[in-house]
Amino acid sequence: MEFSSKLLENAVSEMSQLPGIGKRTALRLVLHMLKQPASRTQLLADALVKMRTEVKFCKSCHNISDVDLCEICSNKSRATDTICVVEDVRDVMAIENTSSFKGIYHVLGGKISPMDGVGPHDLKIDSLINKVKQGEVKELIFALSSTMEGDTTNFYIYKQIQEYNVLTSTIARGISVGDELEYADEITLGRSIVNRIPFESSLKS
Amino acid sequence: MEFSSKLLENAVSEMSQLPGIGKRTALRLVLHMLKQPASRTQLLADALVKMRTEVKFCKSCHNISDVDLCEICSNKSRATDTICVVEDVRDVMAIENTSSFKGIYHVLGGKISPMDGVGPHDLKIDSLINKVKQGEVKELIFALSSTMEGDTTNFYIYKQIQEYNVLTSTIARGISVGDELEYADEITLGRSIVNRIPFESSLKS
Ligand SMILES: [Zn+2]
Ligand SMILES: [Zn+2]
Repeated sequence: MEFSSKLLENAVSEMSQLPGIGKRTALRLVLHMLKQPASRTQLLADALVKMRTEVKFCKSCHNISDVDLCEICSNKSRATDTICVVEDVRDVMAIENTSSFKGIYHVLGGKISPMDGVGPHDLKIDSLINKVKQGEVKELIFALSSTMEGDTTNFYIYKQIQEYNVLTSTIARGISVGDELEYADEITLGRSIVNRIPFESSLKS
Repeated sequence: MEFSSKLLENAVSEMSQLPGIGKRTALRLVLHMLKQPASRTQLLADALVKMRTEVKFCKSCHNISDVDLCEICSNKSRATDTICVVEDVRDVMAIENTSSFKGIYHVLGGKISPMDGVGPHDLKIDSLINKVKQGEVKELIFALSSTMEGDTTNFYIYKQIQEYNVLTSTIARGISVGDELEYADEITLGRSIVNRIPFESSLKS
């Protein structure tokens, strides 16, 4: 692509670093900004930088939060001994949206994926194991997407907490195998939480 | 969508103002930024703001440029009496890429579209008519996309320059009717410039 302006080329090049945004899409977005008031681009830039530099992660569940302890963890009406283990923030949002779960979450920040160079220590697994060891947890609900990586991650955690007195379950597979959790419809997702099954049973199927 | 953080919500909201970027895509992009170093988001934000505030438009052809007169207009080896009229910067890039055109461009900045509230005076049409009136132009090549809006724009310009001694042509319709110019392959697009036909003939077909 031959650009007539270095400024344009640079903006397109930065924009196309984002996943799923090719050069062509980036150019379309940047040209759109040029048709809008400069203040719009400034607002976007400020919002992104402010978010990136100031956002916090809940010290307990690692969910994105504006305060040290997120609204869910600090909510007295939630059962803090029932922990739903999810991959990322989008899954918390998706499950919260179903209003079917009254426990708290633990956000791993991904799943174990040797292909992508993601090992257990790149994820928030240790703090989860610690919660279990300290006897704070009655039940762990694995709500990772049912892919090979999700299953590997579930099993890795399961092996480490097996000796402790904690129930484990996985969300019911109303969600089709291989599908991303966040794209499930509310009813299916809600039902899969209510009908969760013991983790051991899921290993046999 | 329920956000656990105002900072996150705000970033997603600004990002989803961009055309074709829904809330879900915006969230995916913003969460990706959180996994990258903060410096990457800063680079993106700076590139966008710098581009938006400092970019110039060529005073002659209105192409995006870092200097007053763009590289094409100031290139002595280009025929300045042969002007290719295009909708936007992407079309200049697409045609330049074919290396088949040695004249200069005139970037209208869109096409006449009453449905979208775009009239002739929202586009760089007057400066084009002036070039013709001043006898600077031997040939005008209409290279707008062949949609109703493109045809309307061509015809609007054509009516105003009809009385002057200027050749008018449209790029050959090797490009399928209704297709956007920028998505045409190089060979088709290059050939359609070489085989351009008199504008009058295009009215009959
Ligand atoms: Zn929390
Ligand atoms: Zn120019």
